[in-house]
Order: sequence, then C-alpha cells, then structure tokens
Amino acid sequence: MEQNLEQTLALLGRTPSVLNALLRDLPEEWTTRNEGGDTWTPIEVVGHLVHCERGDWLSRARIILESGETRTFDKLDRLGHLKESAGVPLAGLLDEYSRLRAKNLEELLAWNLGPAELALRGSHPAFGAVTLSQLLAAWTVHDMTHLHQIARMLAWQYRDTVGPWSAYLGVLHCTGHSGS
Amino acid sequence: MEQNLEQTLALLGRTPSVLNALLRDLPEEWTTRNEGGDTWTPIEVVGHLVHCERGDWLSRARIILESGETRTFDKLDRLGHLKESAGVPLAGLLDEYSRLRAKNLEELLAWNLGPAELALRGSHPAFGAVTLSQLLAAWTVHDMTHLHQIARMLAWQYRDTVGPWSAYLGVLHCTGHSGS
Repeated sequence: MEQNLEQTLALLGRTPSVLNALLRDLPEEWTTRNEGGDTWTPIEVVGHLVHCERGDWLSRARIILESGETRTFDKLDRLGHLKESAGVPLAGLLDEYSRLRAKNLEELLAWNLGPAELALRGSHPAFGAVTLSQLLAAWTVHDMTHLHQIARMLAWQYRDTVGPWSAYLGVLHCTGHSGS
Repeated sequence: MEQNLEQTLALLGRTPSVLNALLRDLPEEWTTRNEGGDTWTPIEVVGHLVHCERGDWLSRARIILESGETRTFDKLDRLGHLKESAGVPLAGLLDEYSRLRAKNLEELLAWNLGPAELALRGSHPAFGAVTLSQLLAAWTVHDMTHLHQIARMLAWQYRDTVGPWSAYLGVLHCTGHSGS
C-alpha cells in the first residue's frame, strides 16, 4: 500500500510494547539462546533495535530534510549494539527502546511532514537515491523483520521438542533471515 | 531444548497480550488486508487462534490423558474459524482469545503434569504416535508460527513502499508459510 504517515506511526508506535509483552520476564532459556553458530539471541536483537533507534532511522530522515542527496548517510554498524549494550539486562534494553522510540516519534510528528517532504531524496551508501517515504516504510518493516525473527528464534528452541508437528509449523521452515 | 512445563507456560501465557499490543486499534488497512490470493488476513489468523483454543490443543491433551493412543484426535478444521468468527470484530476476537487461553492454562496447570504424564502417547490423525510433551511444545510453536506470520503480513503491505531497502529486510523474503 502507499505510504500513509498515520498508519506508519500507528505501527512504529507499538513495537516497544509488543516486545515488552513478548520478552520481559520471560525465562532466560528463551531470551539468551541463539539459533546456533554466530546468530543473535533475542536480547541481542533488542540491543540492535536500541542501537538503530539511537543512530539510524531518524538521523537519516534528518539528513534528508537538511541536506538531501548531498550528504550520504553514514553506514550503520550492524554489530554496534554488541559493544554498546553488552551486559545491559533485557529489562533495561526494553525500557531504553521504548523511551527512544517515543522520543523519536515525537520529533517525527513535530516535523509535520507532507507529500512534498515525503518525496525528498537522500543518498544511501549502498542503494543510492532513496526517498524519505521509503525510509519511513523501511523503518516500519525493519521492526516487523525483527519481530518475525524473534518469533523464529523462540520457536527454534523447541524445534526438536515438537516431534512430528515440525512439518506443520511454518516458523520452523523460515529462511527469511541470514545468519543474524 | 527439552520440554519444560514452566517455560512452556511462560510463553503460552503471553501470546494474547502480544497480539493485543500489536493489533488492537491498529488501522484497518493493516489488519484486514492479506498477502494476495486466498491468503489470510491478520484478523483471520486471530480467528484461527481462537478456533484452535476452543477445540484443538487442550482437547487433544485431554484425550491423551483419558484415552492414550486408543482414541485418534479429531481432525482440525483449518477453515473452521472462517464461519465461526465471520463478522466478529478484531477487538472481540482478541478478548475471546485471551479469555480462552487463560482458562485453558488454568486447566493445564491443575493437571499437575509430571514427567510420566508428559511421556504419555496419543494418536494424531496424520503423524500417528505423538507424546503429550510434543503436543505442548507444538502448541507453543504454533503461537510463534502465527506471530511470525502476522509480522510478515504487516510487512507485506509495505513491500513496494520500502523501495530498495527490500533487499535488507528479511521478513519480505520469508517462505516459511504456505498459502495461509
């Protein structure tokens, strides 16, 4: 569907409470195990979301508004959260994610973006020209990517425990994410 | 990981509040659109979860405890919810899901299941012998399958809106579910 700022904000605004409902106080066996090898754990995904909330989506939107295509976005450090949030307990990460998201959406709302601003272009280090509308949609789908990933991570812990039911459970057959 | 009833209950107990945080009062553009063709919408997924909560998982667990392998489970009508919940608003479905899940987990807890009961076997119409432990794990992973699916359905609505970011967003490349 077309970019609709009200709909985008409605979904962006609720991701912190969704992850809070899913992960806060969940036994550590669910939240600290990964999918094998160097994959992430649910706690690391929340750390990554905090990291993106601090320096990625809204900062890039601001660059588009201020500099258009003349200033290429900084590259995102996809492993930045591993240093930044090492040792921070899950509850603290969830609190921080919720706080930063609320603050970011407040700023976004205050910009009063209309169709002209949404069509403004910026320069992505890998893709080249992107619009502000695409960036806001990608922010939203990035939330869904990680919710989707966390559901898969939790399911993965019981991949053998379900026995023959595995065949019927789509989440155990998802290949939509790379190693992390 | 091994079946652990406390951990299973911790996850089963929170799915209604996760879906509530994600879907209640979300604009209809997100909740009433499907992924094309005869796929389901998020509202239909919640209807399916209500349907399963009414007649599937706990009923089958009860059959294992009462009759073991001598009574094959009834087949689940995967489209049963379409009649049952047609016209019921999303808020009503979420309320019903939450009420039924709480009631079912209360009954499950009251059974005081130990290792001997978890190892009991029942007869699945497609797989044959399954254990009560496998059934409880599958119930949990079934929740995660549908959370995973709903995240994908929501993301799908913005699949074109994200422009070139599509390449980086794993949820747009998930093939873990069939048509529904």
